[in-house]
Amino acid sequence: MVVRVNGISVSLDGYAAGPDQSLENPLGVGGERLHDWLIATRMFHEMSGEDGGSEGVDDQFAAGLRTGIGATIMGRNMFGPIRGEWPDQDWTGWWGDNPPYHNDVFVLTHYAREPAVMDGGTTFYFVTDGVESALDLALEAAGDQDVLIAGGASVIRQYLRLGLIDQMHLAYAPILLGGGERIFDQPGDGADRYECVGFVPTDAAIHIRFARKSDR
Amino acid sequence: MVVRVNGISVSLDGYAAGPDQSLENPLGVGGERLHDWLIATRMFHEMSGEDGGSEGVDDQFAAGLRTGIGATIMGRNMFGPIRGEWPDQDWTGWWGDNPPYHNDVFVLTHYAREPAVMDGGTTFYFVTDGVESALDLALEAAGDQDVLIAGGASVIRQYLRLGLIDQMHLAYAPILLGGGERIFDQPGDGADRYECVGFVPTDAAIHIRFARKSDR
Repeated sequence: MVVRVNGISVSLDGYAAGPDQSLENPLGVGGERLHDWLIATRMFHEMSGEDGGSEGVDDQFAAGLRTGIGATIMGRNMFGPIRGEWPDQDWTGWWGDNPPYHNDVFVLTHYAREPAVMDGGTTFYFVTDGVESALDLALEAAGDQDVLIAGGASVIRQYLRLGLIDQMHLAYAPILLGGGERIFDQPGDGADRYECVGFVPTDAAIHIRFARKSDR
Repeated sequence: MVVRVNGISVSLDGYAAGPDQSLENPLGVGGERLHDWLIATRMFHEMSGEDGGSEGVDDQFAAGLRTGIGATIMGRNMFGPIRGEWPDQDWTGWWGDNPPYHNDVFVLTHYAREPAVMDGGTTFYFVTDGVESALDLALEAAGDQDVLIAGGASVIRQYLRLGLIDQMHLAYAPILLGGGERIFDQPGDGADRYECVGFVPTDAAIHIRFARKSDR
């Protein structure tokens, strides 16, 4: 079992989201193009209840978002647009009654809230005592499966800095965004503790796998 | 004729040079690995007076560093390790008596100096009145050929910000450096004025071509 990042799209100038994020542009201006490779896949079609979709390398990497994962961690900005105190229990994520996680999802937040039990095996737990605590809970919940650090970029950076991520798959999209939120932001983020262990291009993205150097 | 960047190597976290640049580590700690793809090519072997070298895609991109270029621009830190006033005329670059440029090279500096006429058609001119002036001189010198913005990263950023670069070829090396000097540094660098017009991977690098959007 490993702690991994999977299917995070990055622009060629290093941004996992474009500038000026908002409710209308949750991935920032121009940022939705980051996911063109993913949206075209059979896996994404299936997740959306649609037929068809591409079945090649992009789809194999997309499938990693669902395979072998026993628990998930995400930031509250990935969970939803609400900031500050939770006004009520109504917001339960972007994904409807049956979110595509089907495992325990630990949402990092400064504001306590009761768990939200959803259909299909997903329960959102709200963790207020930090990223390491959330990882402990996720490892416990995952059993012998992997923990997915789902995002966003700021959450990934926090785990990178602590050296707690074992493997990363990033999909470099062939676009430049000119600004936004970086995965590798500051010297000291710990990127140099990881190395590229494989890269595979498709027409839509360049898939890159990283592993911690000490793990090889 | 176009103004172009060619053969600039970038790490997957966006650095064209590693951290802690010094005379011993002109490309910063770990930065020499950025150029593994280039050093293996037949073009680089030829330039160094050696036989052999790879002849595939890497070599074709490397050849772009020598083909169709009528004038070159570089920063003084690319020209050499001396900072501040020139103590004398002795330093004439890293490349010996016959530098691999074979055209007029305009070196951006704050400190005036007489031109240095080298063997093989290379003359180094020292331009003290800014990047736009250097480009005017280079365009004049290039005739109907291209102007190469050779580097380093800071010089490329200055021309990018002014929108004066028509085409870029960057080679993404499959490494993470964790710090150093970025090509795409700040929002406002103008990266969003460019778009990817092609990408080709090899075993050693991912070659990406960019063009200004308005030129398409």
